Amino acid sequence: MKELQERIKKEGIVVNQDILKVDSFINHQVDPLLMEHIGETFAEYFKNHGITKIATIESSGIAPALMTARCMGLPLIILKKQPSSILNDSLYHTQIISYTKEISYELTVASSVISEDDHVLIIDDFLANGEAATGAIRLLRKAHATIAGVGALIEKSFQPGREKLVSQGFDVYSIVRIRHMSEDGIEFIED
Amino acid sequence: MKELQERIKKEGIVVNQDILKVDSFINHQVDPLLMEHIGETFAEYFKNHGITKIATIESSGIAPALMTARCMGLPLIILKKQPSSILNDSLYHTQIISYTKEISYELTVASSVISEDDHVLIIDDFLANGEAATGAIRLLRKAHATIAGVGALIEKSFQPGREKLVSQGFDVYSIVRIRHMSEDGIEFIED
Repeated sequence: MKELQERIKKEGIVVNQDILKVDSFINHQVDPLLMEHIGETFAEYFKNHGITKIATIESSGIAPALMTARCMGLPLIILKKQPSSILNDSLYHTQIISYTKEISYELTVASSVISEDDHVLIIDDFLANGEAATGAIRLLRKAHATIAGVGALIEKSFQPGREKLVSQGFDVYSIVRIRHMSEDGIEFIED
Repeated sequence: MKELQERIKKEGIVVNQDILKVDSFINHQVDPLLMEHIGETFAEYFKNHGITKIATIESSGIAPALMTARCMGLPLIILKKQPSSILNDSLYHTQIISYTKEISYELTVASSVISEDDHVLIIDDFLANGEAATGAIRLLRKAHATIAGVGALIEKSFQPGREKLVSQGFDVYSIVRIRHMSEDGIEFIED
């Protein structure tokens, strides 16, 4: 998707060869129209996959996941990073370790919003090592749902996330794929 | 707004006289079409207010705030609950104490996404004691922005949040207002 590539070229900040900051249009300030176009792109790719719900991990994936859900006419489930003290339903949970962010956290979903009848598309902002996506898959399977695929806005193709997911048979679709990045620039994998 | 009132009557769970759970359509599972209608309602009320940006606190307010931003053709700023280890811009921050959730947290915004030229509409899911809204106002003012108003999806009108904000001269608009709630039911304030 050229629109996102151009935006990353113009506004993305390559902190080092592993970290790309997109705070001005995705992660901190959000461009709603760009999110809508991204939602339309995911909806087009994942149509006719029998998807019943969209899921994302709070909070950077919520904006594009919401637009995808709106576009597909489906509910969005926000997988929570910690159980709220108010949330007292029966909860499924799993632990996720993020090497990129050097943190670990508990991811939860309430049994009231997911069931064995659900076929779920997971949307997230970045796909790098795949810890978040793998954790979301593990959690949704604990909740007896099946996985329709994983959609990422930005794939760091030089890290093993895609490969790990594809080798397990998952359908992975990324809006843009980065082959290599450095302070000198970003090289995209063209379709 | 009848649509949200009906949804709360049908799916909201009154935990006690202070706590209403709306996890099946707002906070955990999200109905994108309802969020779009809420966004249209905020956009209609706050049009011609000279607003330059929408702001919300991660993560329950993101969905309705994004739809409001999309509807008004404006960027959305997600005020972050803790500085990410990746986020190394110059940050403004303030501490928020939530009595409802019995937690305190640091709220941050990067100087790169907000300036003295910004006139900001704050959108959040609940307005109860007003700690979150007051904290967001304090933070945005630290960043030299001005405040156009506060929009909430659900106002607990029996708690002092609205009164505190209105007494400081802020324009407060809530999609639905709850006069009283108990396990016997919810009484709304009609327009």
